Amino acid sequence: MRNDALRYAQAHYAEALTDLQALLKISSISTLPECRPEIERAAHWLADKLTAIGFDHAAVMATAGHPVVYADWLRAGSAAPTLLIYGHYDVQPVDPLGEWLSPPFEPLIKGDKIYGRGADDDKGQLCTHLAALEAYLKTSGRLPLNVKLLIEGEEEIGSMNLGDFIRQHADLLKADAALISDTYMPTPDQPVIVTGVRGLAYLEVSLRGSTHDLHSGMYGGAVDNPLKAMVRMLDSLHDDQERVTIPGFYDRVLPLSATEREQLNNGLVTASTIMAETGAPDLRGEAGYTAAEWIGARPTLEIHGIKGGFIGEGQKTVIPAVASAKISMRLVPNQQAAEIAELFTQHIQRIAPKTMELAIKKHSSENGALVDTNSAAIAAAGQAFELGFGARPLFMREGGSLPVVTLFMEILKTPVVMMGFGLPDDAIHAPNERFHLPNFYRGIDTAIHYYDIFGTASK
Amino acid sequence: MRNDALRYAQAHYAEALTDLQALLKISSISTLPECRPEIERAAHWLADKLTAIGFDHAAVMATAGHPVVYADWLRAGSAAPTLLIYGHYDVQPVDPLGEWLSPPFEPLIKGDKIYGRGADDDKGQLCTHLAALEAYLKTSGRLPLNVKLLIEGEEEIGSMNLGDFIRQHADLLKADAALISDTYMPTPDQPVIVTGVRGLAYLEVSLRGSTHDLHSGMYGGAVDNPLKAMVRMLDSLHDDQERVTIPGFYDRVLPLSATEREQLNNGLVTASTIMAETGAPDLRGEAGYTAAEWIGARPTLEIHGIKGGFIGEGQKTVIPAVASAKISMRLVPNQQAAEIAELFTQHIQRIAPKTMELAIKKHSSENGALVDTNSAAIAAAGQAFELGFGARPLFMREGGSLPVVTLFMEILKTPVVMMGFGLPDDAIHAPNERFHLPNFYRGIDTAIHYYDIFGTASK
Repeated sequence: MRNDALRYAQAHYAEALTDLQALLKISSISTLPECRPEIERAAHWLADKLTAIGFDHAAVMATAGHPVVYADWLRAGSAAPTLLIYGHYDVQPVDPLGEWLSPPFEPLIKGDKIYGRGADDDKGQLCTHLAALEAYLKTSGRLPLNVKLLIEGEEEIGSMNLGDFIRQHADLLKADAALISDTYMPTPDQPVIVTGVRGLAYLEVSLRGSTHDLHSGMYGGAVDNPLKAMVRMLDSLHDDQERVTIPGFYDRVLPLSATEREQLNNGLVTASTIMAETGAPDLRGEAGYTAAEWIGARPTLEIHGIKGGFIGEGQKTVIPAVASAKISMRLVPNQQAAEIAELFTQHIQRIAPKTMELAIKKHSSENGALVDTNSAAIAAAGQAFELGFGARPLFMREGGSLPVVTLFMEILKTPVVMMGFGLPDDAIHAPNERFHLPNFYRGIDTAIHYYDIFGTASK
Repeated sequence: MRNDALRYAQAHYAEALTDLQALLKISSISTLPECRPEIERAAHWLADKLTAIGFDHAAVMATAGHPVVYADWLRAGSAAPTLLIYGHYDVQPVDPLGEWLSPPFEPLIKGDKIYGRGADDDKGQLCTHLAALEAYLKTSGRLPLNVKLLIEGEEEIGSMNLGDFIRQHADLLKADAALISDTYMPTPDQPVIVTGVRGLAYLEVSLRGSTHDLHSGMYGGAVDNPLKAMVRMLDSLHDDQERVTIPGFYDRVLPLSATEREQLNNGLVTASTIMAETGAPDLRGEAGYTAAEWIGARPTLEIHGIKGGFIGEGQKTVIPAVASAKISMRLVPNQQAAEIAELFTQHIQRIAPKTMELAIKKHSSENGALVDTNSAAIAAAGQAFELGFGARPLFMREGGSLPVVTLFMEILKTPVVMMGFGLPDDAIHAPNERFHLPNFYRGIDTAIHYYDIFGTASK
């Protein structure tokens, strides 16, 4: 049964790619209200596709925000385990649009890559499962285990309604393991099972210095400039050791054990690999930790944008009335995102100058998580990766955030497996996002192996 | 002759306002390349208008940038003095467009104000002279002195080609005094003759941290964020006394004499007036100086915009590849703008972190100036203001920059008079720019008085 599915899948890689292209044409950017119709279109495209390949139930289910696509095929019998497969159909915004070499929603195949917003994150990775499931159902008419799919539309905006959805539908979603393909491996020949994700607290700080924009000649040097006040505040959030200065920020951070440090510093992520991947002339991170630890195991604070004043061509001598900054903190397991958001808020309130009116808006906050590496579900991923990619996977902590991991672990008490097929140079969240086609095809094969291996594992 | 002109002007305020409205409909934003046709339109509108009201020569003259409008009427005889009147027809950009209560290029009269980009700066102030000149020519068929007009289209971008134009046409522009109406008075009842303007050096700093935008989860905390690096650099440009830290910045700043301090601190500009005009909750300026000194007599450094990353709705966890900042420094007389731009550049090169590739672009640089208050041209302004506004004008230094002042003084050796009709709440360079109509009308009267008073002064 597994071999039939593999042969079918390999003969139909081209069709799998056509499906991915169709999904990539939908501009399902979750953070932009004007993209709401495209969000609906992506959700219905997936439900229709899952029905077409033989799922018994496939539905677009409402949440307080963007809908969830749920589907199941549960005819493997009660002795077979149930696998919950997660993906997300929403994507990041595309700006700066001018830096794309081809339109972000007109997928382009060039060399061994497919380019487009979502090509990797997560439409490309999700489509490996659609192709793998279709291969079983088209050849054997059945799957080697019971499968449920949960595909959300709010991952890129912090999965803000996913917790409520999972709580409301905990019985429906009950499973023996949850499989997530939304992470990456350092090179195409070195698969990785991700064992931890960071949390995220995302906030926006606004400073108003005057009722209206001012002329810098008339008022500069006397009326404080919100951009200058913002710069002072933001600069003070790190000390000269590149540590975050918010009181209490590190209180719940667990020290790294010698074993953890050894695992993290396995040579896969080093200063050299990071500089090669990004083109950065040099790195800058927290004193006392290595590059691999900076990314996987230490909390960070980043500025994502500063708004206010004039950024067009040429010159304008304005002192803006208002400046705002988007800031996020990546958190390690045991840090509580809601608590960190509150500590941040209190600290900003303390340090805001009296020349400014302050406003703080909280965007998403989600906790980090560490998975149990001793589950049968993880063992199956090790074998599947070895068959699909020809190498034993390594364990690695991911620097990014995946709220669903914590939600599955905390609400469903389900073991989680992060078996992803992306590469570091896929430019996710950036212009010219792409997916390495050999990884797409090997991902399909690996998924086929996984279903069978985990399906025959004792429940 | 003066009284006929005054009666005519007063009976035709409405027509003067109609002319201003026509000029305000032209979106002559000098910094935006796409507005070039509107720049041409504004220049030709002025040349046609000057021909229509009886000027002998009115021409749109090319420069390396936007054209200059030149016109003259020189039939007052060689015994009469020649007055060079300066104005500019270009305007500032209109963003943030969303904060305008009416479209910026559809002038709106509401209460005793006219709203629109350029309503004050400088189309409104310029139109006082068009109406005053027309009133003389329509009633007496002549002017009480020889008049030349120079109306430029690049004031808002630093008058970058005006110096060359004046040098090339120094004979044509020769005059006994230059009159500029492009400044303001603190209240409608307190006219002001501006005695000094600040210089300006405007630069743009760009930092590149990576070849492409990065995901903050994958690289945050290891690859330096150009926005964080920019914040560190910009914050370091002021010390805790709010002094600029660029080495050499203050070297050529002349100390304020007791007399100058007394003149500056005349009660017109105080912390209270500034807070009332701007709505600022508190002020922040250089230690050891008063609010009036901060604005008129001390050099400053301002940030006008920081570009890079994501400033749209919602959240995006991007580390931008590039961040840039627009920065200007207002300079006092004796500071050399080109030298300050160079000191800034060298300092930024020294402090730029090795995690970044640095690029610096120089925009305009122009020197400040102090005018001689003992000229006959200034004395005439004092009398004209008293007749037009019913109060003796005060002397005040202006915080803004007017490159033409230095150019007229240095190239033409002409005494300069800054007799402006704006108000502090005219919101120049900001949304909802406006002009106080009583000032527009009194400005016309004052100009009529001025031509006659200076015309009868000994040459």
